Amino acid sequence: MPRYKLTIEYDGTPFCGWQLQAAAPTVQGALEAAVKAMSGEDVRVHGSGRTDAGVHAIAQVAHCDIAKNFPPGRLRDGLNAHLRPHPIAVLAAEIVPETFQARFSAKRRHYLYRIRNTRANLALEVGRVWRVPRALDTDAMHRAAQRLIGKHDFTTFRDTECQAKSPVKTLDQLEIVRDGDAVNIMTSARSFLHSQVRSMVGSLVWVGEGRWTADDLAAALAACDRAACGPVAPPEGLYLVKVEY
Amino acid sequence: MPRYKLTIEYDGTPFCGWQLQAAAPTVQGALEAAVKAMSGEDVRVHGSGRTDAGVHAIAQVAHCDIAKNFPPGRLRDGLNAHLRPHPIAVLAAEIVPETFQARFSAKRRHYLYRIRNTRANLALEVGRVWRVPRALDTDAMHRAAQRLIGKHDFTTFRDTECQAKSPVKTLDQLEIVRDGDAVNIMTSARSFLHSQVRSMVGSLVWVGEGRWTADDLAAALAACDRAACGPVAPPEGLYLVKVEY
Repeated sequence: MPRYKLTIEYDGTPFCGWQLQAAAPTVQGALEAAVKAMSGEDVRVHGSGRTDAGVHAIAQVAHCDIAKNFPPGRLRDGLNAHLRPHPIAVLAAEIVPETFQARFSAKRRHYLYRIRNTRANLALEVGRVWRVPRALDTDAMHRAAQRLIGKHDFTTFRDTECQAKSPVKTLDQLEIVRDGDAVNIMTSARSFLHSQVRSMVGSLVWVGEGRWTADDLAAALAACDRAACGPVAPPEGLYLVKVEY
Repeated sequence: MPRYKLTIEYDGTPFCGWQLQAAAPTVQGALEAAVKAMSGEDVRVHGSGRTDAGVHAIAQVAHCDIAKNFPPGRLRDGLNAHLRPHPIAVLAAEIVPETFQARFSAKRRHYLYRIRNTRANLALEVGRVWRVPRALDTDAMHRAAQRLIGKHDFTTFRDTECQAKSPVKTLDQLEIVRDGDAVNIMTSARSFLHSQVRSMVGSLVWVGEGRWTADDLAAALAACDRAACGPVAPPEGLYLVKVEY
């Protein structure tokens, strides 16, 4: 039975997240329905990880085993046809060895968080960015962010419902780059805790607004206490950009 | 009475174009309602030009005269507040001399047309790009496009309802650049005819698909006949990017 690797783009807005739910629209649910419609088989589609309600993916990765042997290009085209009108695109389908697992084989995950730092309304980017009206000192944000790099107990930046066994993670990258009123935050790690990126971003915005110093951010990390976290950034600015294998 | 210059971003999707209509939502109508709500005055908001239904603006420019003397920053913030929840943003407001006219003072207009050249569905870019599934030869498109540069009778690329007095325009720039499966078409001129950009883009896609040669495109231009035009590209890929004064 061939194993397929799928690379998937989606607009998270209309979905209650990636993970299958009985009575709510999810990305995983839409994909499994498309596989069923195409193959007639009840197939589990395994993602590299869950994304929360409203979070987007530029290149989520998933795998599934389908008994029928589809040429990969035909699987991609057929899934796209059955996925319409959902805002989900199967960008690529490949046959991979049976040892490939979207979640456990992943070596690194990359996220982008997009802020638009403006007092004006959003127009073309409604649902695509977090609008922050107060002027952000992005240099201060970037310098403070470097205090989070490395291996730490990230309990402060972890949702209380997080199911990971350990709060200890190694953060490889956390860069803040301004381009006009666009502020892009790029981060990567082998894996992240539930809400970790949004919790770090919300706290960094407090740094950018001058409410927190870099030392305050470092103290929040060291507290290992969820109550020490700043605000959690909203989901619509977050994008799963790439999963490395 | 101060004259204000407004720089405006909008998502064209929910609007029947820029120009005021009695019984349909338009960008001009929403702006005039916001000015009225803020100032109590019935004010005409004059745009640099009309955009069609579904066409977007990254930086449309308009002017209006308001009897009340608002500090520009307060006018910008107040208009944004009254415009919500429309996807219209007043990015900037400035006081300009009474000789400034958004339409007639404009020296050059810049448009961007965005294509996504992919067999996959659209997801994050629904309503923001034209999806073209057949592989486009963008080098051939760019070379052919250069045949349209300069002063020509653009009757072929002009909507039959165009109200301009003359079909003769001078096209300054028409560049096609590929970045992965994104194909961006940048064009600029002092002014354009109605549907000129979308008519040129649709015809260039025929070149990219190999249906037309550069000579076919040049012959279509020379025909000065609307019937010689290729397809008209859909509005959702078109953006008014900049107006120079």
